[in-house]
Amino acid sequence: MRPSGRAPDELRPIRLTRHYTKYAEGSVLVEFGDTRVICNASVEERVPRFLKGKGQGWVTAEYGMLPRSTNIRMGREAAQGRQGGRTMEIQRLIGRSLRAVVDLTALGEVTVAIDCDVIQADGGTRTSAITGAYVALVDAVGSLLKKRVIAHSPIHGQVASVSVGIYEGRPVLDLDYIEDSTAETDMNVIMNEAGGFIEIQGTAEGHAFRMNELQAMLDLAKTGIGTLLAKQTEALAKS
Amino acid sequence: MRPSGRAPDELRPIRLTRHYTKYAEGSVLVEFGDTRVICNASVEERVPRFLKGKGQGWVTAEYGMLPRSTNIRMGREAAQGRQGGRTMEIQRLIGRSLRAVVDLTALGEVTVAIDCDVIQADGGTRTSAITGAYVALVDAVGSLLKKRVIAHSPIHGQVASVSVGIYEGRPVLDLDYIEDSTAETDMNVIMNEAGGFIEIQGTAEGHAFRMNELQAMLDLAKTGIGTLLAKQTEALAKS
Amino acid sequence: MRPSGRAPDELRPIRLTRHYTKYAEGSVLVEFGDTRVICNASVEERVPRFLKGKGQGWVTAEYGMLPRSTNIRMGREAAQGRQGGRTMEIQRLIGRSLRAVVDLTALGEVTVAIDCDVIQADGGTRTSAITGAYVALVDAVGSLLKKRVIAHSPIHGQVASVSVGIYEGRPVLDLDYIEDSTAETDMNVIMNEAGGFIEIQGTAEGHAFRMNELQAMLDLAKTGIGTLLAKQTEALAKS
Amino acid sequence: MRPSGRAPDELRPIRLTRHYTKYAEGSVLVEFGDTRVICNASVEERVPRFLKGKGQGWVTAEYGMLPRSTNIRMGREAAQGRQGGRTMEIQRLIGRSLRAVVDLTALGEVTVAIDCDVIQADGGTRTSAITGAYVALVDAVGSLLKKRVIAHSPIHGQVASVSVGIYEGRPVLDLDYIEDSTAETDMNVIMNEAGGFIEIQGTAEGHAFRMNELQAMLDLAKTGIGTLLAKQTEALAKS
Amino acid sequence: MRPSGRAPDELRPIRLTRHYTKYAEGSVLVEFGDTRVICNASVEERVPRFLKGKGQGWVTAEYGMLPRSTNIRMGREAAQGRQGGRTMEIQRLIGRSLRAVVDLTALGEVTVAIDCDVIQADGGTRTSAITGAYVALVDAVGSLLKKRVIAHSPIHGQVASVSVGIYEGRPVLDLDYIEDSTAETDMNVIMNEAGGFIEIQGTAEGHAFRMNELQAMLDLAKTGIGTLLAKQTEALAKS
Amino acid sequence: MRPSGRAPDELRPIRLTRHYTKYAEGSVLVEFGDTRVICNASVEERVPRFLKGKGQGWVTAEYGMLPRSTNIRMGREAAQGRQGGRTMEIQRLIGRSLRAVVDLTALGEVTVAIDCDVIQADGGTRTSAITGAYVALVDAVGSLLKKRVIAHSPIHGQVASVSVGIYEGRPVLDLDYIEDSTAETDMNVIMNEAGGFIEIQGTAEGHAFRMNELQAMLDLAKTGIGTLLAKQTEALAKS
Repeated sequence: MRPSGRAPDELRPIRLTRHYTKYAEGSVLVEFGDTRVICNASVEERVPRFLKGKGQGWVTAEYGMLPRSTNIRMGREAAQGRQGGRTMEIQRLIGRSLRAVVDLTALGEVTVAIDCDVIQADGGTRTSAITGAYVALVDAVGSLLKKRVIAHSPIHGQVASVSVGIYEGRPVLDLDYIEDSTAETDMNVIMNEAGGFIEIQGTAEGHAFRMNELQAMLDLAKTGIGTLLAKQTEALAKS
Repeated sequence: MRPSGRAPDELRPIRLTRHYTKYAEGSVLVEFGDTRVICNASVEERVPRFLKGKGQGWVTAEYGMLPRSTNIRMGREAAQGRQGGRTMEIQRLIGRSLRAVVDLTALGEVTVAIDCDVIQADGGTRTSAITGAYVALVDAVGSLLKKRVIAHSPIHGQVASVSVGIYEGRPVLDLDYIEDSTAETDMNVIMNEAGGFIEIQGTAEGHAFRMNELQAMLDLAKTGIGTLLAKQTEALAKS
Repeated sequence: MRPSGRAPDELRPIRLTRHYTKYAEGSVLVEFGDTRVICNASVEERVPRFLKGKGQGWVTAEYGMLPRSTNIRMGREAAQGRQGGRTMEIQRLIGRSLRAVVDLTALGEVTVAIDCDVIQADGGTRTSAITGAYVALVDAVGSLLKKRVIAHSPIHGQVASVSVGIYEGRPVLDLDYIEDSTAETDMNVIMNEAGGFIEIQGTAEGHAFRMNELQAMLDLAKTGIGTLLAKQTEALAKS
Repeated sequence: MRPSGRAPDELRPIRLTRHYTKYAEGSVLVEFGDTRVICNASVEERVPRFLKGKGQGWVTAEYGMLPRSTNIRMGREAAQGRQGGRTMEIQRLIGRSLRAVVDLTALGEVTVAIDCDVIQADGGTRTSAITGAYVALVDAVGSLLKKRVIAHSPIHGQVASVSVGIYEGRPVLDLDYIEDSTAETDMNVIMNEAGGFIEIQGTAEGHAFRMNELQAMLDLAKTGIGTLLAKQTEALAKS
Repeated sequence: MRPSGRAPDELRPIRLTRHYTKYAEGSVLVEFGDTRVICNASVEERVPRFLKGKGQGWVTAEYGMLPRSTNIRMGREAAQGRQGGRTMEIQRLIGRSLRAVVDLTALGEVTVAIDCDVIQADGGTRTSAITGAYVALVDAVGSLLKKRVIAHSPIHGQVASVSVGIYEGRPVLDLDYIEDSTAETDMNVIMNEAGGFIEIQGTAEGHAFRMNELQAMLDLAKTGIGTLLAKQTEALAKS
Repeated sequence: MRPSGRAPDELRPIRLTRHYTKYAEGSVLVEFGDTRVICNASVEERVPRFLKGKGQGWVTAEYGMLPRSTNIRMGREAAQGRQGGRTMEIQRLIGRSLRAVVDLTALGEVTVAIDCDVIQADGGTRTSAITGAYVALVDAVGSLLKKRVIAHSPIHGQVASVSVGIYEGRPVLDLDYIEDSTAETDMNVIMNEAGGFIEIQGTAEGHAFRMNELQAMLDLAKTGIGTLLAKQTEALAKS
């Protein structure tokens, strides 16, 4: 029995709220249950130094948590003078996942920077961030199409992400904080709309996991991501 | 005529939403029109090093802006490795303003740290932060009373804040971003419930201001703060 | 009775020594009693990045304290790897105050950077720094006129600053350290030669202050700043 | 055909040289072909602050690259004043992988810190680092047993790691730099001696990968890790 | 002919002004011609962490330059967030030189921290700093004797420093900035009152120097330091 | 008797291994007994900002120690976020020593950056680094000659370095760690092939040293450097 009473293959309630703030070209509040992340996509018509003159664009992400998004207040990274290893790891993952569905050359010399800021953390902040960031990215690209900076969308795929794990010996989908903190295995899966894997990161927290457990977790992930992709499509269908 | 169509002595719509996130002992979303700030008060039963063994508590604040809370994306302070001067100035101001209404000895060896994070900035982020932070502080102290860490509230006053300025030659209350960016004078006023000044900071952006202009601005501030104090009281009256 | 035996409206002995060091285009040692600050104005014929190509100049300030300018040795900010909040707050204030009397367009693409370094601190370091920095700025602009980089002075006003406060229940002018550390209210006032306010920053340290106290403090400030402006004029009259 | 002429399931020449430097309690030079990493395990009889008084030990890792370990000289992280995201990601991975085979309570209040410094990088620095670090860890624990700080080894498993990927459409084992930089998919697999997964991290660089590709890669990894575990055993068998 | 018209073995005018600021236990303004350095010695009755419980004290130094102590304004190290290599090199040298004449065990668990801040730089800032710092150290130790923290002075020698060099083919004493910037060889010599060398640092800027040149420079240094030691003694003789 | 049993004028076994890593244009492992330093010289066809457009090149060095190159593990400078004073001092010394034998104008707009990374430290890391770095520099310049970036070598001298000191009252050559940590005087000498001094840095650790001791140490240094220059020549003679 999961602490939340959910079935093993049951996602938490998912909400994707577009146009959440008024300035960003794409602004999405994504909620996976009590986990709430603001994904703001900003368009800048220039590229980072390492891409100058290469005739292509860039999609990148930054991640942060409000100090009291968690049960115990964390120190503010800006006050500490450095981003921690976990933060860097997550923002690199979000950026890679989004770039996997964008033709950077077709984007032109434009940067889309997606800020994922966690307002409330209850497990799955990185997977919800990726899922919400995709919607923000589509809206940001939409603003470029509208302004005719580009004629066609450079986005050639759809991407969503969910966590899976082994909790009390059973594979479960979309772990909340209580499950996450005691799970034996924790895996983040990022997939596209064609069922291909963009990234998988699985970590044994307790015992090492077996091939059949991996298989079961990936099956759950596939189901969950199918639902998330549909939620994204639905959110984007609203004008 | 103000860009928003407001009368010179008219506040923007004010909203104070308590219990905005689930972990913080006090959590308030404060809105002054389109300006939205999350104020999370965290209670820690220890004090900073410089107060150790002095038999008193501490109230402090930190301030941050989401990178895209503004019209143009700002660099993330955590990524830049330092908090800017404006950030430090504001968080010091918020902390001082709150400590002005707290008896730190009566608080005991407890720290209340209030994180004010700007989700959307449309002028007046520091004044709305102070106004919201007071409510979060009351809730945080309430949690200490409930847990019987302290027997009586150490809060001996009420504090709210508003900006005033000279816009196109006329004194106005609660400037939004458009007004703020072209105002000749910009003043932040922090007052208590007895009409005393806790802090005033006035800056001539255009011509130097005169005593009669100062007087007119302080009169507007007094009116505005009266309303804000009532809004705080109303919000805190809800269980 | 003030600890120094001064009358409530009496400034400490004021000294402004020009040409204090030999390299800076403007170099002033300012003394308000035992408070001693070196104000060095440096001229650079370029502007910061954010002003490039805008056809205007910039006036900015940096502030520092020698580690043992104070009663207890402070850590050296360079060794700690960051400037503290108070430092940033003060240097931003000095810069704003000076820019209030300069036509930056008339200055041309030139930066005047004014370093205010406190040799000995006995209260009022920021107000003495502003008062001294103005004189250094005039000398720095004088060097530009002499070199015919500009034909006319872009300085269109005169600025000086003093602190006022409520000490043992009475308004007093130009607080020294002993007064400052126990004052109920502390206010820094920056005015121009026409009696207009450029900036006021008042903070209740003890009880919140009332309108009549504010009025009394501002009256004292006006008197004190009148004397300071005369001291500046006198110093600048010497060749 | 692989650039190196290796068969798809062929590892590069593997060397594990123990006692490589004279001070560290465990010191191993690990070579996967031209990739050379020094793994120095240091024993300290104290624990990090967050573990104080919890009656357990800690195993952690740090990772660095000599600036010219790569084809193009990289900036030195110490000179830049911060460790990059990739560095943090890798050192966190190494630490997690080793902790997966250590009973931290049985270790006692001891920290084993393993420095993995890349002398020459030709692909697979993190997988070789993990493989070498395990041997260094065993030697470091050996020094504790010898000094009778602990009576029994807290190491309850063996761990090794290898990369696999899809290169020119075919699954291959242990990618060198040329393969790595053009591979469509790159996966790092960390397994224990019982064939369980400790961590898997797979990233689609080109097209998203399919379940059958994942299966093929994991099969290769299993074979390769089998060999690496044998190489570790062999190295540790020497006195 | 030297630019200043001095004889090859002629020091610049030397001044040592004690009690230069009012807070430091030892405060000396040292002037070697136009080079002016404030040396403030602060006494703290505690020791750095690495000496805790070892029954000895510590003498250390920090060095800084006002941004416009030089002909061209330098960036402020506190603003840049780090001390440069030259600064660190110099402050380490000052600290070592002073410790060479102090019995740290006899000092007891006390730290004397000497801040050497350059007000105006015209060559020889490190040698003048050492020469002035010694006097400040004696005064700081005097305050400990007066307060009876220690019964006897732990200072067992006297130390002074001067630069020598090869300028236009001839050995010269106490180089000013013009000489220093074109000298073929530049050497800083630190000696005690018994004519022993505490430190010598010689650098060929142009051609490598020969043994006979070294000998000639050391002879000049000996003469110059003799005069400096006498100046210190004279300054300390004043009550 | 020296701890190692060496004669007072006896160097440790010296080894210079060229082509130690495969990417650097010059790569040398230098060994002075148990002290092992990798010196990698990297060629970049650009110059630092302060030399842009001046028609000359630059030779610079960076120095680092593996955390466990020493008996007690040191903190990693990259993790601490800053290079220590000793590191900066040493890398500045290495750079100056190499530039003393290079005609930077003849080098053209090219930078040779030499990374000296200590694998194992047993005294004399800076002197061995200089000695090895010279060989790496020659190889790096060789690569420029081969690529015909320059027609003639800009290296006009040869440089090597050794430490000398007073150990148990006797002058000794090439101190190892045990000697170094208890020596009364420690001196690093850098000379060219013509017997000229490029840099000398002598520090009294115990008693101040006398002219005759200095003379004796410099004589030992000359002998030792003679051998080191021959070792360099021999190593460079191999193709």
